[in-house]
Amino acid sequence: MGMVDSTIHTMTCFTDAPLELESGATLRDITLAYQTHGALNEAKDNVVLVCHPLTGTAHVAGLSDPNNPKSAGWWDQVIGSGKAINTDTHFVICINSLGSCKGSTGPCDINPDTQKPFGLEFPVITIGDMVRAQKAVLDHLGIQQIKMVIGGSMGGMQALEWVCMFPDMVRSCVPIAATGQVSPQTIAFDAVGRQAIRGDSDFHDGRYQEHNTTPHHGLGLARMIGHITYLSESSMSQKFGRKLQEKNDLSYGMDQDFQIESYLQYQGDKFVSRFDANSYLYLTKAVSYFDLPKKYGSLEKAFSPSNARFLVISISSDWLYTPEQSKIVARQLMRLNKEVTYVDVDTHYGHDAFLIDNPDLFRLINVFLESL
Amino acid sequence: MGMVDSTIHTMTCFTDAPLELESGATLRDITLAYQTHGALNEAKDNVVLVCHPLTGTAHVAGLSDPNNPKSAGWWDQVIGSGKAINTDTHFVICINSLGSCKGSTGPCDINPDTQKPFGLEFPVITIGDMVRAQKAVLDHLGIQQIKMVIGGSMGGMQALEWVCMFPDMVRSCVPIAATGQVSPQTIAFDAVGRQAIRGDSDFHDGRYQEHNTTPHHGLGLARMIGHITYLSESSMSQKFGRKLQEKNDLSYGMDQDFQIESYLQYQGDKFVSRFDANSYLYLTKAVSYFDLPKKYGSLEKAFSPSNARFLVISISSDWLYTPEQSKIVARQLMRLNKEVTYVDVDTHYGHDAFLIDNPDLFRLINVFLESL
Repeated sequence: MGMVDSTIHTMTCFTDAPLELESGATLRDITLAYQTHGALNEAKDNVVLVCHPLTGTAHVAGLSDPNNPKSAGWWDQVIGSGKAINTDTHFVICINSLGSCKGSTGPCDINPDTQKPFGLEFPVITIGDMVRAQKAVLDHLGIQQIKMVIGGSMGGMQALEWVCMFPDMVRSCVPIAATGQVSPQTIAFDAVGRQAIRGDSDFHDGRYQEHNTTPHHGLGLARMIGHITYLSESSMSQKFGRKLQEKNDLSYGMDQDFQIESYLQYQGDKFVSRFDANSYLYLTKAVSYFDLPKKYGSLEKAFSPSNARFLVISISSDWLYTPEQSKIVARQLMRLNKEVTYVDVDTHYGHDAFLIDNPDLFRLINVFLESL
Repeated sequence: MGMVDSTIHTMTCFTDAPLELESGATLRDITLAYQTHGALNEAKDNVVLVCHPLTGTAHVAGLSDPNNPKSAGWWDQVIGSGKAINTDTHFVICINSLGSCKGSTGPCDINPDTQKPFGLEFPVITIGDMVRAQKAVLDHLGIQQIKMVIGGSMGGMQALEWVCMFPDMVRSCVPIAATGQVSPQTIAFDAVGRQAIRGDSDFHDGRYQEHNTTPHHGLGLARMIGHITYLSESSMSQKFGRKLQEKNDLSYGMDQDFQIESYLQYQGDKFVSRFDANSYLYLTKAVSYFDLPKKYGSLEKAFSPSNARFLVISISSDWLYTPEQSKIVARQLMRLNKEVTYVDVDTHYGHDAFLIDNPDLFRLINVFLESL
């Protein structure tokens, strides 16, 4: 019990031998930021690895500022003493993704070869590379077995990649609102977002740090596009409808009229202040590349070596990573006689539903974890 | 029979009294571009008014260059001798929308008050204002009755607005892939598109003509966003899937890898060369404002005065103006005991399906028109 410690730890790895990336490039002296909750038991078999979505951080639970309830980690509702992922009995670890800008090595860090920020000289990374980096943290902590790897969206892709890359290490896997192969529609939205960033006159071909600028406009646009895909038509209609923003009537001008417009603007502005544009390019590129059938020959071959138990979860109103995409994963696992449960969580909220308070979803996770 | 004449006519109206816009502003000396096909009969009761979608033109049928089959009008498959809308017996008219940049008065034209391009001094217009401008063309041609008003997307909104504004003039109405009230999700996509344009450093607050620039980047982005919404996940998967563009393997670089990326880029680039950024702002704003229940008190009140026959058509895979939105229109018409047929055309193509060769859709329109 007691207060959850929300320290962010860092470690540096791949100092002797560099990380060999799936592209064939290498990356050395990698720093990884991570947070842990609960205690690792003596058998080291109570590990829950939580993988964050695209722009998430290692700060998964607890308050980073004890006096500020708004400083809670991004999945604080799920992780803690007595919560769905119970830290009284589990050791939870969340690692900031390679390529991100929240403590782990990414394109805004200094390239040891040039002593300048990487910018677009950072190598393109994949979901598999992220998983390999995560494994280095587990190695560092002496962890050889994962009781459950869980994540939503990009985190769900990592969870699936874990069972494919390290089948002997993973006892159970919970991909939420994810896919085994990113669809062309998702590629399309991400491509437009990247184009918005790269075409911003403040982008300077990725060297904006040296120009003391940031491509605010492009990054904000990318986030606004993304944010639309994280909601659903129905949730937007219920939450905003055609309500006007602080007006009694249409302005008949070119400024914003509707609440949905200022909401998106707010989301874009908020994001720009907390996230790096180059990281956004690299992380969305990794997502676009995610394709288990291509990497392993087929989805069947990808999952064959695994002995994990699976809980595959989709969100009924998710049109970014549709229930159909989760079903393809679940169906393949069933055909392979894996232990798999597939649940489509019925909510109108859209893709991001796994990030909000959702007792049904949390109970599902809890029951699954406690049954292991 | 014989060759379809594809001359674009222009007329100037509102020279004596200005057009009173729904905003309360006025606009005078309005030029409107239109095209006609077939002959107006003596009774002047064989008029089919075709309303174009967002970025369409008056050039609806025939070849603008007799030697170039690619110069066909945007609905040439539908309109002509012996076609679904048969010009042997019907007089077809299509008018470039007020606010557009294809011959009718819009923001890139000269403001008679300042002798400079309007830019953002152009008044915000509505779908109702567009309809009122169209009526001026019909008045000019001595037309008092419309046999059928038909259009897809923004054109469908105009078709619906026609029966609400001028119920005595319209004998039948065919809105395709349209809505009676634009949803917050569509508002959201359009708002991001407008933001992309207005944040482009070449936009110069709408005065880019005087700076000899064009906001290519922003307008291209807006079109790319729009284009995603005109297709469907399924059509993208069938047409593009995860196929690479002129490559054998992923580039592991920041440039485009997938066909869907270069396709969208191509669509954006092509659009920039043919359309004006300010017009795009005004037309999408008009769409965002479209809300028959708000304007008339309710959808019931909006449609009550009409005696038209309706053929309401939705596209099964349309997620921009969903079948559900068409059903709301059809349901209200049924409740009012109007003569209404509702058809959901089953195709995976997405919103833009009405613009491609679709024999089922064209037959529907033909049978409806010939039955009048």
